[in-house]
Amino acid sequence: MSPATRRSESDVRRRLSLVAEPGDPRLRDLLQHHEPGAVLRAAQGRGVLAGRPLPAAWQERAAGLDDADTVALARAESVGLRWVVPGDDEWPEPLGDLDHVEPLGGTAGAPLGLWVRGTVRLDEALSAAVAIVGARAATTYGLGLAGEIAAGLGDAGVAVVSGAAFGIDAAAHRGALAARGTTVAVLAGGADLPYPRAHASLLDLIAAGGAVVSEQPPGQVAIRARFLTRNRLIAALAGGTVVVEAAARSGSLNTLHWADRLGRTTMGTPGPVTSQMSEGVHLALRSGEAELVTRADDVLESLGGIGAEPAPEPVRRTTAYDRLGPDAARTLDGLRWSETLTTDQVARRVGLAGSQAQEHLTALVDAGYAERLGDGWTLVRRADLA
Amino acid sequence: MSPATRRSESDVRRRLSLVAEPGDPRLRDLLQHHEPGAVLRAAQGRGVLAGRPLPAAWQERAAGLDDADTVALARAESVGLRWVVPGDDEWPEPLGDLDHVEPLGGTAGAPLGLWVRGTVRLDEALSAAVAIVGARAATTYGLGLAGEIAAGLGDAGVAVVSGAAFGIDAAAHRGALAARGTTVAVLAGGADLPYPRAHASLLDLIAAGGAVVSEQPPGQVAIRARFLTRNRLIAALAGGTVVVEAAARSGSLNTLHWADRLGRTTMGTPGPVTSQMSEGVHLALRSGEAELVTRADDVLESLGGIGAEPAPEPVRRTTAYDRLGPDAARTLDGLRWSETLTTDQVARRVGLAGSQAQEHLTALVDAGYAERLGDGWTLVRRADLA
Repeated sequence: MSPATRRSESDVRRRLSLVAEPGDPRLRDLLQHHEPGAVLRAAQGRGVLAGRPLPAAWQERAAGLDDADTVALARAESVGLRWVVPGDDEWPEPLGDLDHVEPLGGTAGAPLGLWVRGTVRLDEALSAAVAIVGARAATTYGLGLAGEIAAGLGDAGVAVVSGAAFGIDAAAHRGALAARGTTVAVLAGGADLPYPRAHASLLDLIAAGGAVVSEQPPGQVAIRARFLTRNRLIAALAGGTVVVEAAARSGSLNTLHWADRLGRTTMGTPGPVTSQMSEGVHLALRSGEAELVTRADDVLESLGGIGAEPAPEPVRRTTAYDRLGPDAARTLDGLRWSETLTTDQVARRVGLAGSQAQEHLTALVDAGYAERLGDGWTLVRRADLA
Repeated sequence: MSPATRRSESDVRRRLSLVAEPGDPRLRDLLQHHEPGAVLRAAQGRGVLAGRPLPAAWQERAAGLDDADTVALARAESVGLRWVVPGDDEWPEPLGDLDHVEPLGGTAGAPLGLWVRGTVRLDEALSAAVAIVGARAATTYGLGLAGEIAAGLGDAGVAVVSGAAFGIDAAAHRGALAARGTTVAVLAGGADLPYPRAHASLLDLIAAGGAVVSEQPPGQVAIRARFLTRNRLIAALAGGTVVVEAAARSGSLNTLHWADRLGRTTMGTPGPVTSQMSEGVHLALRSGEAELVTRADDVLESLGGIGAEPAPEPVRRTTAYDRLGPDAARTLDGLRWSETLTTDQVARRVGLAGSQAQEHLTALVDAGYAERLGDGWTLVRRADLA
């Protein structure tokens, strides 16, 4: 494709995104059989493609397209957004998976393109990425956990993708930023509009070292339906999605469903069963839709080791009993600090023959665990026998 | 089998349990090819069975068997223990499964019999039973959760099996007792010896409405190895095992492993990832060895609905958005309390054709969600639009 053709293809996609609502399954269906240019021309023309009418709203929008495009471009320029489409070097190829899965919640398909604010090359920033999403009304526990997992991923060189919402999303972005990791925010409205407004400076920080992206044209407002549409991008841009806290009916579970549908790794963090904010995650864990993770190392392990070594076994305290053979441990277990027992008493107590008990008791004295006291045996006070 | 033969078989098993340590895999292996009577006779005779020597400890114990049996019977009589063996009406048949699985942690096989303290018929008490086990050093969270699940099982007519230890075990027994449910304690030492001593009155309460059982002869002390041996009985007596709190290396996980090996339902409750006491459970949940449960209804559901109806869906709050079709909801979402918008403004904002928006706006006014204000539309203040 020549640079001119590519630019024209990029322009077509940008203009089409002003005509058809991004994520509309009808658009996905049309693009499976027609070029974006053909769809755009039909919307601007008679409103019919291959003998079938296009949605009325597309025709209406197409009528005012030039003005809308001018406004969008001006908005983009004013905040430094660039428009990235399939075929561009930095296009994140995994988004293409969205064209091959069924719609969910009335939304479907890969985006026509992404408006990007930020300095990183998007494909490189997202070469290893995990989405962390969750409740807006998160608990202190959930916020801390999201931040810690995000920071751990940042340390491991894995980007954190989220939606910049209050609660878990913001904690995840902040955790990644704190670890000097890359983080990418995917917005439900235009990438030029800080949403929520209170996160304007957070979004500035995200853009400074990562990216703020949206498939919606600049200036587009974030309405409820667009959050669901947006969730599919969060799931598709990451190799796996972690839900940190979610009530039984949280929108974060929608992102998890998308990740599941896309064959990405689906994960959730447990919490107290008494916390409503963990209820949705527990349901997903119980149903098997998500794997349980408790820390960044678990996440990396579940993803098949992107970026880091496998999770270490939790540290375990070894006691004398672990270092002895089963019969020696059994003999040791028959001894008490408070009493002196004969060999026969120990043998009977632990169910060994007298000769076996004698042998093990002698060895335990040599090892410093037991001592002889007259005719009997007693335990030595040691910390590792507690 | 005549009553006399049965009594003699029962006597043989009781006497053999004084000779061979219950749970010894060598005993299990011998009993797969020989009658208990043959093993006992060999231990009391030349110490050889089918050309192979029996363990030296068995021969030593066999030498003092009559005295030991007299002591055991006297102890049993003094606290009202009865000896129950396979073939007895109240023998819990599921224990037989232990003869068909591999040893774990140096222990194996169905018990020779059970010493029982309590008024219930053991097989009936355990016809529907769940084991609840966990950490001794449990947290307040874990204790409350164990008690609540146990009480829920008690309400559903399901018996709670546990080990009477400090922490989760005791909380489980107490939860079942509080709900007037049946509960069964399986001890690592003799059923005549309250263990731990501080639970003497708890064990009295358990025996009063349920049972305190042990495969160990009366008077036998609870040593460390016998807790592991005992755990297999807890797992085998119940249809499923729930671990409520367990550190990474807790003995409660041993009970879960047994339940797994026995093909019982294996379950665990999540907790804060910051709690060491949940670490072992989370590992089991993450590895898939246990299913996540958060309440008694989950447990009943996992067990295939013994005793109760399936868990109800968590209560969810419905909003106006759930009751409307997608385009109507979208239109509604374009309205604001704070501003009055024209039909075209709404249409553009939400990506619908003007005629569609008009139609939905009119319907929303009829439904009481929106109102006309001059040339425009605005939102009605309603609780279900929050």
